[in-house]
Amino acid sequence: MKEYIEQNKDRFFEELFSILRIPSVSAKPEHKGDMRRCAQRLVELLLEAGADEACVSESAGNPVVFGRKTVDPAARTVLVYGHYDVQPAEPFEKWNSDPFEPEIHDGAIWCRGANDDKGQLFMHIKAFEFLLRTGQLRHNVKFMFEGEEEIGSPSLPGWIKAHRSELKADVCLVSDTTMISEKVPSINCGMRGLAYLQVDVTGPNKDLHSGHYGGAVANPIQVLCEMISTLIDADGRVTVPGFYDDVVNLSRADRRMLAKAPFDMKEYKEFLGVRALRGEKGYTPLERTGIRPCLDVCGIWGGYTGVGAKTVLPSEAHAKISMRLVPNQDSATITRLFKKHFEKLAPKCVKVNVTPCEGGDGFLIPISSDAYKAASRAIAEVYGIEPVPSRGGGSIAVLAEVQKILGIDPLLMGFGLERDTIHSPNESYLLRQFFGGMESIAKFYQYYN
Amino acid sequence: MKEYIEQNKDRFFEELFSILRIPSVSAKPEHKGDMRRCAQRLVELLLEAGADEACVSESAGNPVVFGRKTVDPAARTVLVYGHYDVQPAEPFEKWNSDPFEPEIHDGAIWCRGANDDKGQLFMHIKAFEFLLRTGQLRHNVKFMFEGEEEIGSPSLPGWIKAHRSELKADVCLVSDTTMISEKVPSINCGMRGLAYLQVDVTGPNKDLHSGHYGGAVANPIQVLCEMISTLIDADGRVTVPGFYDDVVNLSRADRRMLAKAPFDMKEYKEFLGVRALRGEKGYTPLERTGIRPCLDVCGIWGGYTGVGAKTVLPSEAHAKISMRLVPNQDSATITRLFKKHFEKLAPKCVKVNVTPCEGGDGFLIPISSDAYKAASRAIAEVYGIEPVPSRGGGSIAVLAEVQKILGIDPLLMGFGLERDTIHSPNESYLLRQFFGGMESIAKFYQYYN
Repeated sequence: MKEYIEQNKDRFFEELFSILRIPSVSAKPEHKGDMRRCAQRLVELLLEAGADEACVSESAGNPVVFGRKTVDPAARTVLVYGHYDVQPAEPFEKWNSDPFEPEIHDGAIWCRGANDDKGQLFMHIKAFEFLLRTGQLRHNVKFMFEGEEEIGSPSLPGWIKAHRSELKADVCLVSDTTMISEKVPSINCGMRGLAYLQVDVTGPNKDLHSGHYGGAVANPIQVLCEMISTLIDADGRVTVPGFYDDVVNLSRADRRMLAKAPFDMKEYKEFLGVRALRGEKGYTPLERTGIRPCLDVCGIWGGYTGVGAKTVLPSEAHAKISMRLVPNQDSATITRLFKKHFEKLAPKCVKVNVTPCEGGDGFLIPISSDAYKAASRAIAEVYGIEPVPSRGGGSIAVLAEVQKILGIDPLLMGFGLERDTIHSPNESYLLRQFFGGMESIAKFYQYYN
Repeated sequence: MKEYIEQNKDRFFEELFSILRIPSVSAKPEHKGDMRRCAQRLVELLLEAGADEACVSESAGNPVVFGRKTVDPAARTVLVYGHYDVQPAEPFEKWNSDPFEPEIHDGAIWCRGANDDKGQLFMHIKAFEFLLRTGQLRHNVKFMFEGEEEIGSPSLPGWIKAHRSELKADVCLVSDTTMISEKVPSINCGMRGLAYLQVDVTGPNKDLHSGHYGGAVANPIQVLCEMISTLIDADGRVTVPGFYDDVVNLSRADRRMLAKAPFDMKEYKEFLGVRALRGEKGYTPLERTGIRPCLDVCGIWGGYTGVGAKTVLPSEAHAKISMRLVPNQDSATITRLFKKHFEKLAPKCVKVNVTPCEGGDGFLIPISSDAYKAASRAIAEVYGIEPVPSRGGGSIAVLAEVQKILGIDPLLMGFGLERDTIHSPNESYLLRQFFGGMESIAKFYQYYN
């Protein structure tokens, strides 16, 4: 497919940029219209690439893009999953260019969504187009692109249930993850689940003058800090009772296998700009992000946060808490346990409210399947190195649902790299990975028999 | 002066509203022009009231308004201090009306600055006008209104030093505080000092995907919460080493005198909407805000604080910390002790930066002076009850400087009430207090011999 890419490169960029320019931020209600525009544009791209049919299909939330090409009812069917929604671009001031105006320089595409997931789902449309136009497509292909992945895919499970028969397939192919590095290609064979909540602490019923009341009235920020500080103990373990109950402890053999992934502590720290790491006692950094659950405060706010000094004892303080879960931990159960624990932690001088925001379970993928083997062979050919199986720390909440509802395993061929800083300012996607991904996907179809 | 108020009420409101409408928020650089407009308008009001001279005088920061009336070089001179800057109005959405468009209803003036301090300083201009126009003014009067009180008066000490001779006076009269209640009028005989700092905690050099890094990389919000949670111990005491070293412990007799101020715990809690109070062990709520120092987090922010869920492990977290100090605690020393302690608290996985924002010392005022006695007699006549001496929890940083540089004591005749919620949304000033304050001030001149 190398040659095909060379010949069609400029058109590829034009097409990809037309979806990157649409600020399809699912977390923000004001982007509702952009979600639909982006979905419609994807339908056009699928039809232009050669799909028999493609449509914007309504769900309980943002629409789902569905398309398909049937070449032989008896042949194997690949269901491609991707998402066209993106993370908010804030903080805007840290971007070197407009987050929704793609640029190409330094060998990469720079834009919110360049990688996650518009850039990665686009590789699938182009690999499909290549196979079809060159007469090499021997599989039936279905496309399912959702617009709510970044907010936990609340509507997709319902949509999948309603369209179960149209979605029949042999594997669910996904590019929405990273590989360890260009030199160490990898295939994700498991992802963490997620439980995300907002906590609100209310003290006095109005903001108070900190001089008149300071010292006599509990400060909700102080109380929130105290509560949060107890959520992780000195050994880096989450203190929510029952949090680890369902965590499967990996065997020594399994841990040894995972330890094969190369990891350079010095490089890792330099990339992050930190002098020291911190995490659960007894586990390596890769284990801490791969096979162990964790708790993070993703946001905190309260009181005066502007320029200068305002002497206020605020009425409220808030935080957003994310817990990454490992397979066998149930997101709904963990959400319930956290809520119960956090409400119990609250001293009498404040009111505490805990609101679940999103969640999803983790999952594991067998590395013995035909699909895994085909992907491994495809990547090995393109990269010249056999990929290692890895465990992704992130979450694609809906894939556990795909497994449950459709009874098929996802296969995670991700081509992102750490350097892409997805979810952060200056997201980018290396052109080498963008094109290497397309080639690998095309080869996957070749070997998936 | 009751009759004079009745006759001139509408003009008084018009004049006051003309300064209330100017958003003179000293904490925000974008209001620089408003500061000057407000100062110029005050000069007009002083001249219209009958001052011999009034001018906008340059300082290192926002200009100072200075005015004077000399009736008899041999007579006593009263220096009136006030400030024309106001606190930021945020959070705007909690105001029932435009914070910079005054309204009168429910027996009060509603506006940012209605009380603190535009409404209170205005009483002095009108009491002066009344005495002058009715031929009763026997004192020389000087006015000094600054535009930086809410940011800690960084420029006024320098300005006072430069104008020491013009400021010669016998007492510094100030209305910028509250009384206990209308039924329990009080005169402030001491105020707390202030040390205000911003702390910045930096973890990784960029925002990270909380799935890819969560569990392995220290989260700066978590670390900041942990650090803040240690600043106050289980007994409600500030843990900064040396914090209490210079605090003067009051004698039993002194504490008994202060305990005379009535305090209804049930009413206090109901007003604040809290089920329980919290503070330093061994002290009453009034002692905690009056004679004991304290530490409050006035603001905190970091990570994603928008709508919905963004799974980010942020690069930075920030907080604004205020410490209220009691007389004999030195603001600069406490600032230094805090900075040292907080930097030492920082674990190796983050960088911590502490930036002092503002500060000022507390002070005490002798209740045996002629000025105190005159104020007490004046208030007793207007309210029909003898005022009690009280200790204000707030800070007027510059008054300790006035004491030091000019060698005169401040006298705090404050007419605010708790219900006015200064520094908060829906600041207001009861008309009864506004007019009662004018009368009390006019009578003060009568009895201050």
